Amino acid sequence: MFFASDNSGPVHPEVLQVLAEANQGYQMGYGVDDLMDEVRDRIRTLFDAPDAAVYLVVNGTSANALALATLADPWQTVFCTPVSHIHRDECNAPEFYSGAKLTLVEGDDKMNTKALRAAIEAEGNRGVHGPQRGPVSITQVTECGTIYRLDEIRALGDMAQSYGLPLHLDGARFANALVALGCSPAEMTWKSGVDVVSFGGTKNGLMGVEAVVLFDPAKAQEFELRRKRGGHLMSKHRYLSAQMAAYLRDDLWLSSARMANDNCTRLADGLRAAGATFIYEPQANMIFARLPRHLHRRLIYAGAVYHMEGEELDGPDENALLSCRLVCDWSMQQAEIDRFLALVSNTASAAG
Amino acid sequence: MFFASDNSGPVHPEVLQVLAEANQGYQMGYGVDDLMDEVRDRIRTLFDAPDAAVYLVVNGTSANALALATLADPWQTVFCTPVSHIHRDECNAPEFYSGAKLTLVEGDDKMNTKALRAAIEAEGNRGVHGPQRGPVSITQVTECGTIYRLDEIRALGDMAQSYGLPLHLDGARFANALVALGCSPAEMTWKSGVDVVSFGGTKNGLMGVEAVVLFDPAKAQEFELRRKRGGHLMSKHRYLSAQMAAYLRDDLWLSSARMANDNCTRLADGLRAAGATFIYEPQANMIFARLPRHLHRRLIYAGAVYHMEGEELDGPDENALLSCRLVCDWSMQQAEIDRFLALVSNTASAAG
Amino acid sequence: MFFASDNSGPVHPEVLQVLAEANQGYQMGYGVDDLMDEVRDRIRTLFDAPDAAVYLVVNGTSANALALATLADPWQTVFCTPVSHIHRDECNAPEFYSGAKLTLVEGDDKMNTKALRAAIEAEGNRGVHGPQRGPVSITQVTECGTIYRLDEIRALGDMAQSYGLPLHLDGARFANALVALGCSPAEMTWKSGVDVVSFGGTKNGLMGVEAVVLFDPAKAQEFELRRKRGGHLMSKHRYLSAQMAAYLRDDLWLSSARMANDNCTRLADGLRAAGATFIYEPQANMIFARLPRHLHRRLIYAGAVYHMEGEELDGPDENALLSCRLVCDWSMQQAEIDRFLALVSNTASAAG
Amino acid sequence: MFFASDNSGPVHPEVLQVLAEANQGYQMGYGVDDLMDEVRDRIRTLFDAPDAAVYLVVNGTSANALALATLADPWQTVFCTPVSHIHRDECNAPEFYSGAKLTLVEGDDKMNTKALRAAIEAEGNRGVHGPQRGPVSITQVTECGTIYRLDEIRALGDMAQSYGLPLHLDGARFANALVALGCSPAEMTWKSGVDVVSFGGTKNGLMGVEAVVLFDPAKAQEFELRRKRGGHLMSKHRYLSAQMAAYLRDDLWLSSARMANDNCTRLADGLRAAGATFIYEPQANMIFARLPRHLHRRLIYAGAVYHMEGEELDGPDENALLSCRLVCDWSMQQAEIDRFLALVSNTASAAG
Repeated sequence: MFFASDNSGPVHPEVLQVLAEANQGYQMGYGVDDLMDEVRDRIRTLFDAPDAAVYLVVNGTSANALALATLADPWQTVFCTPVSHIHRDECNAPEFYSGAKLTLVEGDDKMNTKALRAAIEAEGNRGVHGPQRGPVSITQVTECGTIYRLDEIRALGDMAQSYGLPLHLDGARFANALVALGCSPAEMTWKSGVDVVSFGGTKNGLMGVEAVVLFDPAKAQEFELRRKRGGHLMSKHRYLSAQMAAYLRDDLWLSSARMANDNCTRLADGLRAAGATFIYEPQANMIFARLPRHLHRRLIYAGAVYHMEGEELDGPDENALLSCRLVCDWSMQQAEIDRFLALVSNTASAAG
Repeated sequence: MFFASDNSGPVHPEVLQVLAEANQGYQMGYGVDDLMDEVRDRIRTLFDAPDAAVYLVVNGTSANALALATLADPWQTVFCTPVSHIHRDECNAPEFYSGAKLTLVEGDDKMNTKALRAAIEAEGNRGVHGPQRGPVSITQVTECGTIYRLDEIRALGDMAQSYGLPLHLDGARFANALVALGCSPAEMTWKSGVDVVSFGGTKNGLMGVEAVVLFDPAKAQEFELRRKRGGHLMSKHRYLSAQMAAYLRDDLWLSSARMANDNCTRLADGLRAAGATFIYEPQANMIFARLPRHLHRRLIYAGAVYHMEGEELDGPDENALLSCRLVCDWSMQQAEIDRFLALVSNTASAAG
Repeated sequence: MFFASDNSGPVHPEVLQVLAEANQGYQMGYGVDDLMDEVRDRIRTLFDAPDAAVYLVVNGTSANALALATLADPWQTVFCTPVSHIHRDECNAPEFYSGAKLTLVEGDDKMNTKALRAAIEAEGNRGVHGPQRGPVSITQVTECGTIYRLDEIRALGDMAQSYGLPLHLDGARFANALVALGCSPAEMTWKSGVDVVSFGGTKNGLMGVEAVVLFDPAKAQEFELRRKRGGHLMSKHRYLSAQMAAYLRDDLWLSSARMANDNCTRLADGLRAAGATFIYEPQANMIFARLPRHLHRRLIYAGAVYHMEGEELDGPDENALLSCRLVCDWSMQQAEIDRFLALVSNTASAAG
Repeated sequence: MFFASDNSGPVHPEVLQVLAEANQGYQMGYGVDDLMDEVRDRIRTLFDAPDAAVYLVVNGTSANALALATLADPWQTVFCTPVSHIHRDECNAPEFYSGAKLTLVEGDDKMNTKALRAAIEAEGNRGVHGPQRGPVSITQVTECGTIYRLDEIRALGDMAQSYGLPLHLDGARFANALVALGCSPAEMTWKSGVDVVSFGGTKNGLMGVEAVVLFDPAKAQEFELRRKRGGHLMSKHRYLSAQMAAYLRDDLWLSSARMANDNCTRLADGLRAAGATFIYEPQANMIFARLPRHLHRRLIYAGAVYHMEGEELDGPDENALLSCRLVCDWSMQQAEIDRFLALVSNTASAAG
């Protein structure tokens, strides 16, 4: 009953298989391996973007920080949400790489155009004194487990473009959003105004690989140099390429994301049936729920693992509703979900 | 006949085996996995340094840049050799991470105390105007394939210490040096005055893992934060731990290094017998040799792969001696070496 | 009728006089001039801080950025208000110098302890993932023309200290606050928990000099090196020292601030009498008022100069109340104030 | 007898006069003052560069660092001489502002094309691994008191251009070189291939002002933002403009430089007559000479002030030749020079 994170599960066996196959003989390092050619071709085809520049790095923080550094000047500010990973969970990496600062656009899980316009208008109007307007960055799936509809991305893209600002998409859970929306990668990105995407793999069955896709290749060389300067160019690059190749072959990335989302739906349905309330409506592979304290205790004592942000397991009110995050990945066993749900149901009232 | 680099060969099968074993169930990410406990214990024991702080990163550039950033203030300068990796091959990563600059200590493959003293004395004597004196960084095995004797490291360590400067060791080929010297890790590091070591694994059979070992743990927390801020904290960290655990178990790191060095000796002996001359006396797993142009052409046409820095394969003088680098890793087949040597011998005169 | 800014007026004649006197013969540069000894002694005495480190720079942005860089690590965040100069008006200079980011503490003109606690608690609780807690920075006089009472600073200082965080005071209008409060420099700073103060002079009659005072001299050398590295160490430093010496001799800084504040009181009283409303109660030398559109037009056509942030002088509603900022400095002529007020009074209703 | 530096003397009285004249009434700050219009026009006319972007900063370090940051990307290296101010005397400011590193071009006082070509060729040939080639930076007058002839600058400019690299001129002593060469500012800069010049004033009679002139205004906005972000945009900018206006009116800058150079010639002639030897042939306002220890002692005991780099005034050999630097500014009295020379002549043998 492990729901702590989708980067805690195992690597998909097919990935290990391709890694083993790649482990033959010699290959030139630093990104010129044969498998990288396959990966580049596959991603360009998938995104219907034959000119896109494609690079691999080992995690999401470096993907985001390098992407934003390539889009932002050091005297600019990046527009993002207060819950965004680049603001909360990257220990100043985006600022370190770009030199820019972050401006928080008011809102909850998703950025909306009204708040974005207000934030943009409030910046860049004091001549050289204030930070200048820089890229807009959104996250799909959001950190709250919700998903931007295509028209929402399009509206944000249009607004960014109307100010001459590029749009970055942090796609750590890109696949989970894509299968939920049932759209194409092109529709969710450049056709909706996205200029650069961090295309995640690590949370969806890889060992540690994310692709950065720049639809306009004009800054490709700059990205390469920034990647090297940041220490993010891998010498034995074939092992990154192999993971991403395995991910894209036979649509493993999509089937894994579907499994994760299905697991999440099973869990959410069970919780809902037991009377639990959700802070955000689950749309992908994450649930933010409120459960009574006594139930949390029961679950955790029974071996469930998940995050309760800032909440106390022991407290005066047994029925107090405490919020938690439950994340499902592709590897989760339905039996484990059902065991969790059985514990929930056996308690008198899940919602207290 | 692939002698281009020791980061072009395959990963050792035992490493893949431990990776597969580690791929079971859930593990907390970001460095708190069980295997990391094993790795930390093993490295502390190996280095006879029970308090050392130990961290894993995915490559040598990040290991060096983070280590130096932890040792150097941004108004300081790092003393290193003109051939050092941190100066020539990291695209300003050490400067990016540390803010410091690099001062080149005159010399050839190795740094010597006389030149180091001159370089230190020439800096830090203009009050706040010039860069301040910062860490000394040396590389073992050097970029030229030679090895510092223990007394040489000790002398540099003593000199650094006499100026109150820390000593960093770039040990991308740490194991190759260790087996060549036949000493202990402690002797080659802290007992000789080394404060922080980049302990390489990637060039010796791993997929992409280096450890940074700080013998004084006072700056451990700073290192952790710098690693995260640089985007070098891996979420699925267990796969780094697994590689390093495999490396250290059953002395795989030492046996692999011995195989690489032995391969190099076989190659060097053959070349010497054929009359080749060496730019540096081979001491570990790299050879810098001069071969006549016609021999280079023969070798390369026959499929040999290696670097000829800045040299033209086609030129007027068939017997001109052109310099090249030949690197051996653990995976090299003796038959390949012998095939290479046969090509050399069959040519009338290797040395022109 | 120039109320645009207190950095638009002339330099006090006594300052020019001391500059001329200092312009004799030779003086060693870079901060070791004789007048700097006088300045250091005077500031230490004024602040009752015999060990304080005292440095001069040419403007407020560099004073703040260098002070914060000395207090903050690059993986930390600085707590400040949304209206603070360091956030809005320094084009990422604090971030550039420190590497840290800024966290906006909810509130209006002043920071309050409740919001500060909430902001601190919301940071630094995600291990190495999020930015770490760093210095708290407040501004006295605030950007809204209001003043922290001593007990308010003390409360913020206590709270910062309870978290082990240093407190920085941006005192661009330090003197204006001091004369309004009628307290001592020590009371407004270190006795209230302030660790480092940017002690402004430029807005109060100098050409361009601010002192940075570090009450704990432990980081003095670091500050000096950061100042030099930022290009903020002046070669002909005596001309900075001369300005600051003139400022402190015969309490010119206090009398000038009193004149500015008195001018502001005269202006505020007149506006109030004419029915104007204030966005913030004027407490020092700045007024944020709402005036009807027709009055703004009348004033500006008559030659008044001041900022109307984001407001349109021409619009449909003649009586719409548009907000503006009016700043008084020491050099303002009462006749000019009265001329302005006469224009206000002659209009039927100042408040519409 | 003060020969320590040309930033130790007084400000020219005409500069103070214009400062006093500028000290009337109100002026908008931050570079939009009336006098800046005059300065911009004068500099454009002087340089025969009607489109040039012109900015003022308070010292040479910020001028150089900002100029280089505008020309260099953070993954590049700047080519300069080992004696250059940007390398030796700016405490990493160029690296801080640009992110780039410095590559030392072998040579003595001046950079020569052969060594520049070798340095350029040795960089930028390792793909993304090494630093990329960036701007070339030279200093006129050099740090050794010598002067590049126009054809020498032209040759360096041609070479830089042939590699697509921009050329920066550190002109801290621009005027001294110009009057020595008897050429026009255009000839010494853009007509010889210079793209950006740090046009010094501080060492030639100003209080603290240097202009940065970008002949191609394409990066003007970037420069402005970098200047603000570095804390180098002055609020009361009119006092910078006033200094530079005074400098340029009536050719004060040229007459002052001539006086400095003439003083130097008088001093050099006297020293030569007394048998002194020069390390570099004095060409502007600096002398690098060797004098016997007993003479140094005599001079210094008599009140002479100058730098003896790394030399001991007390030592075993009375006749040992110790090197020193003697700098003349415009304010130097001939009587002081003659007093110095009299001390030299009265000693038996100046050259030992």
